[in-house]
Amino acid sequence: MFSPLIRQLIDALRILPGVGQKSAQRMALQLLERDRNGGLRLAQALTQAMEGVGHCKQCRTLSEEELCPQCADPRRDDSLLCVVEGPLDVFAVEQTGYRGRFFVLKGHLSPLDGLGPEAIGIPELEARIKAGSFSEVILATNPTVEGEATAHYIAQLLAGSGLVLSRIAHGVPLGGELELVDGGTLAHALAGRRPIV
Amino acid sequence: MFSPLIRQLIDALRILPGVGQKSAQRMALQLLERDRNGGLRLAQALTQAMEGVGHCKQCRTLSEEELCPQCADPRRDDSLLCVVEGPLDVFAVEQTGYRGRFFVLKGHLSPLDGLGPEAIGIPELEARIKAGSFSEVILATNPTVEGEATAHYIAQLLAGSGLVLSRIAHGVPLGGELELVDGGTLAHALAGRRPIV
Repeated sequence: MFSPLIRQLIDALRILPGVGQKSAQRMALQLLERDRNGGLRLAQALTQAMEGVGHCKQCRTLSEEELCPQCADPRRDDSLLCVVEGPLDVFAVEQTGYRGRFFVLKGHLSPLDGLGPEAIGIPELEARIKAGSFSEVILATNPTVEGEATAHYIAQLLAGSGLVLSRIAHGVPLGGELELVDGGTLAHALAGRRPIV
Repeated sequence: MFSPLIRQLIDALRILPGVGQKSAQRMALQLLERDRNGGLRLAQALTQAMEGVGHCKQCRTLSEEELCPQCADPRRDDSLLCVVEGPLDVFAVEQTGYRGRFFVLKGHLSPLDGLGPEAIGIPELEARIKAGSFSEVILATNPTVEGEATAHYIAQLLAGSGLVLSRIAHGVPLGGELELVDGGTLAHALAGRRPIV
Protein backbone atom coordinates (compact mmCIF):
# COMPACT_ATOMS: atom_id res chain seq x y z
CA MET A 1 0.00 0.00 0.00
CA PHE A 2 2.69 2.48 1.05
CA SER A 3 6.32 2.30 -0.04
CA PRO A 4 8.84 0.90 2.51
CA LEU A 5 10.16 4.25 3.84
CA ILE A 6 6.63 5.55 4.38
CA ARG A 7 5.61 2.32 6.13
CA GLN A 8 8.67 2.57 8.36
CA LEU A 9 7.79 6.17 9.27
CA ILE A 10 4.17 5.24 10.06
CA ASP A 11 5.35 2.40 12.33
CA ALA A 12 7.87 4.67 14.08
CA LEU A 13 5.25 7.38 14.72
CA ARG A 14 3.08 4.86 16.56
CA ILE A 15 5.45 4.83 19.54
CA LEU A 16 4.15 8.31 20.41
CA PRO A 17 1.53 8.14 23.18
CA GLY A 18 -2.02 8.50 21.84
CA VAL A 19 -1.06 7.89 18.21
CA GLY A 20 -2.76 4.95 16.47
CA GLN A 21 -2.52 3.64 12.91
CA LYS A 22 -4.82 6.26 11.35
CA SER A 23 -3.19 9.27 13.04
CA ALA A 24 0.26 7.94 12.18
CA GLN A 25 -0.70 7.69 8.49
CA ARG A 26 -2.11 11.20 8.51
CA MET A 27 1.02 12.56 10.26
CA ALA A 28 3.42 10.80 7.87
CA LEU A 29 1.65 11.89 4.68
CA GLN A 30 1.05 15.44 5.89
CA LEU A 31 4.74 15.89 6.71
CA LEU A 32 5.75 14.41 3.35
CA GLU A 33 3.30 16.50 1.38
CA ARG A 34 3.42 19.81 3.20
CA ASP A 35 6.32 20.21 5.59
CA ARG A 36 9.48 18.23 4.91
CA ASN A 37 11.64 20.87 6.59
CA GLY A 38 9.48 20.59 9.70
CA GLY A 39 9.92 16.81 9.57
CA LEU A 40 13.70 17.18 9.39
CA ARG A 41 13.69 19.70 12.25
CA LEU A 42 11.64 17.25 14.33
CA ALA A 43 14.15 14.47 13.52
CA GLN A 44 17.00 16.68 14.68
CA ALA A 45 15.20 17.80 17.84
CA LEU A 46 14.47 14.15 18.69
CA THR A 47 18.07 13.08 18.18
CA GLN A 48 19.48 15.96 20.20
CA ALA A 49 17.03 15.43 23.07
CA MET A 50 17.31 11.61 23.18
CA GLU A 51 21.12 11.80 23.18
CA GLY A 52 21.63 14.98 25.20
CA VAL A 53 19.06 15.10 27.99
CA GLY A 54 20.09 13.67 31.34
CA HIS A 55 18.96 14.54 34.84
CA CYS A 56 19.38 17.69 36.91
CA LYS A 57 21.97 16.75 39.55
CA GLN A 58 19.97 18.52 42.25
CA CYS A 59 16.28 17.74 41.70
CA ARG A 60 16.67 14.77 39.30
CA THR A 61 14.20 16.14 36.75
CA LEU A 62 15.00 15.76 33.02
CA SER A 63 17.54 18.35 31.88
CA GLU A 64 20.61 18.47 29.66
CA GLU A 65 22.16 21.07 31.92
CA GLU A 66 23.72 20.26 35.30
CA LEU A 67 21.02 22.32 36.98
CA CYS A 68 17.51 22.56 35.55
CA PRO A 69 15.85 26.01 35.18
CA GLN A 70 14.08 25.59 38.54
CA CYS A 71 17.21 24.65 40.49
CA ALA A 72 19.34 27.30 38.76
CA ASP A 73 16.96 30.14 39.58
CA PRO A 74 18.37 32.03 42.62
CA ARG A 75 15.10 33.86 43.30
CA ARG A 76 13.10 30.82 44.35
CA ASP A 77 12.13 30.02 47.93
CA ASP A 78 14.81 27.78 49.46
CA SER A 79 12.71 26.91 52.49
CA LEU A 80 10.12 24.87 50.55
CA LEU A 81 10.68 21.50 48.86
CA CYS A 82 7.94 19.88 46.79
CA VAL A 83 8.38 16.14 46.13
CA VAL A 84 6.69 14.81 42.96
CA GLU A 85 6.65 11.55 41.00
CA GLY A 86 7.83 12.82 37.62
CA PRO A 87 8.88 15.75 35.40
CA LEU A 88 5.33 16.43 34.15
CA ASP A 89 4.25 16.96 37.76
CA VAL A 90 6.87 19.70 38.11
CA PHE A 91 5.15 21.45 35.23
CA ALA A 92 1.69 20.98 36.78
CA VAL A 93 2.74 22.32 40.21
CA GLU A 94 4.67 25.18 38.59
CA GLN A 95 1.46 26.28 36.83
CA THR A 96 -0.18 26.91 40.20
CA GLY A 97 2.31 29.68 40.99
CA TYR A 98 4.44 27.60 43.40
CA ARG A 99 7.96 29.05 43.55
CA GLY A 100 9.80 26.80 45.99
CA ARG A 101 12.19 24.01 45.05
CA PHE A 102 11.39 20.55 43.65
CA PHE A 103 12.57 17.01 43.99
CA VAL A 104 11.55 14.54 41.31
CA LEU A 105 11.25 10.85 42.24
CA LYS A 106 11.42 8.12 39.61
CA GLY A 107 7.73 7.26 39.99
CA HIS A 108 6.36 5.66 43.15
CA LEU A 109 7.17 2.74 45.43
CA SER A 110 5.91 -0.47 43.85
CA PRO A 111 7.22 -3.52 45.73
CA LEU A 112 5.43 -5.93 43.39
CA ASP A 113 7.44 -4.53 40.46
CA GLY A 114 10.62 -4.59 42.54
CA LEU A 115 10.67 -0.79 42.89
CA GLY A 116 11.87 -0.04 46.41
CA PRO A 117 13.18 3.21 47.93
CA GLU A 118 16.55 3.01 46.12
CA ALA A 119 14.92 2.48 42.72
CA ILE A 120 12.80 5.62 42.97
CA GLY A 121 15.55 7.86 44.34
CA ILE A 122 14.75 8.16 48.07
CA PRO A 123 18.47 8.19 49.07
CA GLU A 124 19.03 11.14 46.70
CA LEU A 125 16.02 12.88 48.26
CA GLU A 126 17.51 12.45 51.72
CA ALA A 127 20.85 13.81 50.53
CA ARG A 128 19.13 16.79 48.89
CA ILE A 129 17.27 17.58 52.12
CA LYS A 130 20.46 17.27 54.18
CA ALA A 131 22.31 19.62 51.83
CA GLY A 132 19.50 22.18 51.74
CA SER A 133 17.97 24.54 54.28
CA PHE A 134 14.32 23.57 53.95
CA SER A 135 11.73 24.21 56.63
CA GLU A 136 8.86 22.35 54.92
CA VAL A 137 8.63 19.32 52.64
CA ILE A 138 5.40 19.09 50.61
CA LEU A 139 4.63 15.54 49.52
CA ALA A 140 2.87 15.94 46.18
CA THR A 141 2.92 12.35 44.92
CA ASN A 142 -0.19 11.25 43.03
CA PRO A 143 -3.46 10.65 44.91
CA THR A 144 -3.31 6.93 44.07
CA VAL A 145 -2.75 4.00 46.41
CA GLU A 146 0.94 3.85 45.39
CA GLY A 147 1.37 7.62 45.61
CA GLU A 148 -0.16 7.66 49.09
CA ALA A 149 2.09 4.80 50.21
CA THR A 150 5.13 6.62 48.85
CA ALA A 151 4.17 9.85 50.64
CA HIS A 152 3.60 7.88 53.84
CA TYR A 153 6.98 6.16 53.55
CA ILE A 154 8.80 9.47 53.08
CA ALA A 155 6.89 11.06 55.96
CA GLN A 156 7.96 8.18 58.27
CA LEU A 157 11.55 8.53 57.12
CA LEU A 158 11.69 12.26 57.80
CA ALA A 159 9.73 12.18 61.06
CA GLY A 160 11.82 13.68 63.85
CA SER A 161 13.97 15.70 61.46
CA GLY A 162 12.35 18.93 62.61
CA LEU A 163 10.92 19.59 59.13
CA VAL A 164 7.25 20.42 58.63
CA LEU A 165 5.87 17.58 56.49
CA SER A 166 2.71 18.22 54.51
CA ARG A 167 0.59 16.38 51.97
CA ILE A 168 -1.46 18.05 49.22
CA ALA A 169 -5.15 18.17 50.13
CA HIS A 170 -7.68 15.68 48.84
CA GLY A 171 -11.18 16.95 48.13
CA VAL A 172 -13.70 17.81 45.45
CA PRO A 173 -12.13 19.32 42.32
CA LEU A 174 -13.27 22.83 41.35
CA GLY A 175 -16.00 23.00 38.73
CA GLY A 176 -17.25 19.46 39.27
CA GLU A 177 -20.62 18.31 40.52
CA LEU A 178 -20.90 16.68 43.91
CA GLU A 179 -23.05 13.83 42.61
CA LEU A 180 -20.31 12.87 40.15
CA VAL A 181 -17.53 12.74 42.74
CA ASP A 182 -16.55 9.26 43.98
CA GLY A 183 -17.25 8.29 47.58
CA GLY A 184 -13.64 8.14 48.73
CA THR A 185 -12.93 11.66 47.50
CA LEU A 186 -16.09 13.02 49.06
CA ALA A 187 -15.22 11.35 52.38
CA HIS A 188 -11.82 13.10 52.26
CA ALA A 189 -13.52 16.40 51.41
CA LEU A 190 -15.84 16.07 54.42
CA ALA A 191 -13.10 14.99 56.82
CA GLY A 192 -10.91 17.85 55.62
CA ARG A 193 -13.65 20.50 55.86
CA ARG A 194 -12.64 24.01 56.89
CA PRO A 195 -14.44 26.82 58.71
CA ILE A 196 -15.69 29.44 56.24
CA VAL A 197 -14.90 32.51 58.32
CA MET B 1 10.21 25.44 32.94
CA PHE B 2 11.84 22.82 30.67
CA SER B 3 15.49 22.84 29.64
CA PRO B 4 16.26 24.15 26.09
CA LEU B 5 16.53 20.76 24.33
CA ILE B 6 13.23 19.60 25.82
CA ARG B 7 11.53 22.87 24.85
CA GLN B 8 12.88 22.52 21.31
CA LEU B 9 11.52 18.96 21.10
CA ILE B 10 8.08 20.02 22.38
CA ASP B 11 7.94 22.83 19.80
CA ALA B 12 9.02 20.49 17.00
CA LEU B 13 6.39 17.88 17.92
CA ARG B 14 3.67 20.50 17.54
CA ILE B 15 4.04 20.49 13.75
CA LEU B 16 2.36 17.06 13.77
CA PRO B 17 -1.34 17.36 12.86
CA GLY B 18 -3.60 17.10 15.91
CA VAL B 19 -0.80 17.64 18.44
CA GLY B 20 -1.18 20.63 20.78
CA GLN B 21 0.98 21.90 23.62
CA LYS B 22 -0.19 19.33 26.20
CA SER B 23 0.14 16.28 23.94
CA ALA B 24 3.56 17.48 22.77
CA GLN B 25 4.76 17.74 26.40
CA ARG B 26 3.44 14.29 27.18
CA MET B 27 5.07 12.84 24.04
CA ALA B 28 8.45 14.49 24.71
CA LEU B 29 8.66 13.44 28.36
CA GLN B 30 7.37 9.94 27.72
CA LEU B 31 10.01 9.36 25.04
CA LEU B 32 12.73 10.78 27.29
CA GLU B 33 11.68 8.77 30.32
CA ARG B 34 10.67 5.46 28.76
CA ASP B 35 11.77 4.97 25.18
CA ARG B 36 14.88 6.81 24.01
CA ASN B 37 15.67 4.11 21.46
CA GLY B 38 12.19 4.51 20.01
CA GLY B 39 12.77 8.26 19.82
CA LEU B 40 16.03 7.75 17.95
CA ARG B 41 14.38 5.25 15.58
CA LEU B 42 11.63 7.80 14.90
CA ALA B 43 14.26 10.47 14.18
CA GLN B 44 15.96 8.18 11.69
CA ALA B 45 12.68 7.17 10.02
CA LEU B 46 11.76 10.84 9.67
CA THR B 47 15.09 11.78 8.13
CA GLN B 48 15.07 8.87 5.69
CA ALA B 49 11.47 9.54 4.61
CA MET B 50 11.79 13.35 4.32
CA GLU B 51 14.98 13.01 2.27
CA GLY B 52 14.19 9.86 0.32
CA VAL B 53 10.51 9.87 -0.63
CA GLY B 54 9.61 11.32 -4.01
CA HIS B 55 6.71 10.57 -6.32
CA CYS B 56 5.81 7.46 -8.29
CA LYS B 57 6.58 8.38 -11.91
CA GLN B 58 3.36 6.76 -13.09
CA CYS B 59 0.60 7.63 -10.62
CA ARG B 60 2.34 10.53 -8.80
CA THR B 61 1.62 9.18 -5.33
CA LEU B 62 4.33 9.45 -2.65
CA SER B 63 6.97 6.75 -3.06
CA GLU B 64 10.75 6.49 -2.87
CA GLU B 65 10.73 3.89 -5.62
CA GLU B 66 10.23 4.70 -9.31
CA LEU B 67 6.96 2.79 -9.25
CA CYS B 68 4.78 2.63 -6.13
CA PRO B 69 3.45 -0.78 -4.93
CA GLN B 70 0.15 -0.22 -6.79
CA CYS B 71 1.76 0.66 -10.12
CA ALA B 72 4.38 -2.08 -9.85
CA ASP B 73 1.81 -4.84 -9.26
CA PRO B 74 1.27 -6.68 -12.57
CA ARG B 75 -1.91 -8.39 -11.36
CA ARG B 76 -4.04 -5.25 -11.18
CA ASP B 77 -6.77 -4.32 -13.66
CA ASP B 78 -5.26 -2.10 -16.36
CA SER B 79 -8.63 -1.10 -17.77
CA LEU B 80 -9.66 0.97 -14.71
CA LEU B 81 -8.14 4.26 -13.58
CA CYS B 82 -9.24 5.91 -10.33
CA VAL B 83 -8.35 9.61 -9.99
CA VAL B 84 -8.00 10.93 -6.41
CA GLU B 85 -6.84 14.12 -4.72
CA GLY B 86 -4.05 12.73 -2.55
CA PRO B 87 -2.08 9.71 -1.30
CA LEU B 88 -4.41 9.13 1.69
CA ASP B 89 -7.31 8.71 -0.75
CA VAL B 90 -5.41 5.89 -2.48
CA PHE B 91 -5.34 4.15 0.86
CA ALA B 92 -9.07 4.74 1.44
CA VAL B 93 -10.11 3.47 -2.02
CA GLU B 94 -7.71 0.51 -1.72
CA GLN B 95 -9.49 -0.53 1.50
CA THR B 96 -12.73 -1.03 -0.46
CA GLY B 97 -11.19 -3.86 -2.47
CA TYR B 98 -10.64 -1.79 -5.65
CA ARG B 99 -7.84 -3.36 -7.70
CA GLY B 100 -7.54 -1.09 -10.73
CA ARG B 101 -4.89 1.62 -11.21
CA PHE B 102 -4.66 5.05 -9.59
CA PHE B 103 -3.72 8.56 -10.50
CA VAL B 104 -3.01 11.01 -7.68
CA LEU B 105 -3.63 14.71 -8.29
CA LYS B 106 -1.94 17.37 -6.15
CA GLY B 107 -5.20 18.34 -4.45
CA HIS B 108 -8.01 20.04 -6.33
CA LEU B 109 -8.45 23.02 -8.65
CA SER B 110 -8.50 26.23 -6.64
CA PRO B 111 -8.33 29.28 -8.89
CA LEU B 112 -8.44 31.67 -5.93
CA ASP B 113 -5.21 30.14 -4.60
CA GLY B 114 -3.69 30.17 -8.06
CA LEU B 115 -3.99 26.38 -8.41
CA GLY B 116 -4.92 25.69 -12.03
CA PRO B 117 -4.80 22.45 -14.05
CA GLU B 118 -0.98 22.49 -14.34
CA ALA B 119 -0.48 22.98 -10.61
CA ILE B 120 -2.52 19.91 -9.70
CA GLY B 121 -1.05 17.64 -12.37
CA ILE B 122 -3.76 17.47 -15.06
CA PRO B 123 -1.20 17.35 -17.92
CA GLU B 124 0.45 14.31 -16.25
CA LEU B 125 -3.00 12.71 -15.92
CA GLU B 126 -3.62 13.20 -19.64
CA ALA B 127 -0.22 11.71 -20.47
CA ARG B 128 -0.90 8.73 -18.19
CA ILE B 129 -4.24 8.07 -19.88
CA LYS B 130 -2.68 8.34 -23.33
CA ALA B 131 0.06 5.88 -22.40
CA GLY B 132 -2.35 3.40 -20.80
CA SER B 133 -5.10 1.16 -22.10
CA PHE B 134 -7.95 2.22 -19.83
CA SER B 135 -11.58 1.75 -20.70
CA GLU B 136 -12.99 3.64 -17.67
CA VAL B 137 -11.82 6.61 -15.60
CA ILE B 138 -13.40 6.87 -12.15
CA LEU B 139 -13.32 10.42 -10.80
CA ALA B 140 -12.99 10.00 -7.04
CA THR B 141 -12.13 13.53 -5.98
CA ASN B 142 -13.66 14.67 -2.69
CA PRO B 143 -17.40 15.42 -2.50
CA THR B 144 -16.67 19.11 -1.83
CA VAL B 145 -17.33 22.09 -4.08
CA GLU B 146 -13.69 22.10 -5.23
CA GLY B 147 -13.61 18.33 -5.67
CA GLU B 148 -16.78 18.42 -7.77
CA ALA B 149 -15.40 21.25 -9.90
CA THR B 150 -12.18 19.31 -10.43
CA ALA B 151 -14.10 16.16 -11.45
CA HIS B 152 -16.24 18.23 -13.79
CA TYR B 153 -13.19 19.85 -15.37
CA ILE B 154 -11.53 16.48 -16.00
CA ALA B 155 -14.76 15.03 -17.39
CA GLN B 156 -15.01 17.93 -19.88
CA LEU B 157 -11.40 17.46 -20.86
CA LEU B 158 -11.80 13.74 -21.54
CA ALA B 159 -15.20 13.95 -23.22
CA GLY B 160 -15.04 12.46 -26.70
CA SER B 161 -12.00 10.33 -25.88
CA GLY B 162 -14.10 7.16 -25.98
CA LEU B 163 -13.43 6.46 -22.29
CA VAL B 164 -16.27 5.70 -19.89
CA LEU B 165 -16.15 8.52 -17.33
CA SER B 166 -17.74 7.93 -13.95
CA ARG B 167 -18.05 9.76 -10.66
CA ILE B 168 -18.34 8.08 -7.26
CA ALA B 169 -21.93 8.09 -6.01
CA HIS B 170 -23.24 10.64 -3.53
CA GLY B 171 -25.85 9.46 -1.05
CA VAL B 172 -26.53 8.60 2.56
CA PRO B 173 -23.58 6.95 4.30
CA LEU B 174 -24.16 3.43 5.69
CA GLY B 175 -25.03 3.25 9.38
CA GLY B 176 -26.23 6.83 9.62
CA GLU B 177 -29.70 8.10 10.44
CA LEU B 178 -31.72 9.85 7.78
CA GLU B 179 -32.69 12.70 10.08
CA LEU B 180 -29.01 13.52 10.67
CA VAL B 181 -28.08 13.69 6.98
CA ASP B 182 -27.83 17.17 5.47
CA GLY B 183 -30.34 18.26 2.82
CA GLY B 184 -27.91 18.35 -0.10
CA THR B 185 -26.78 14.79 0.50
CA LEU B 186 -30.34 13.56 0.90
CA ALA B 187 -31.36 15.30 -2.34
CA HIS B 188 -28.47 13.46 -4.10
CA ALA B 189 -29.59 10.19 -2.51
CA LEU B 190 -33.13 10.67 -3.77
CA ALA B 191 -32.09 11.75 -7.26
CA GLY B 192 -29.70 8.81 -7.50
CA ARG B 193 -32.24 6.23 -6.26
CA ARG B 194 -32.05 2.73 -7.72
CA PRO B 195 -34.65 0.04 -8.35
CA ILE B 196 -34.45 -2.61 -5.63
CA VAL B 197 -35.02 -5.64 -7.83
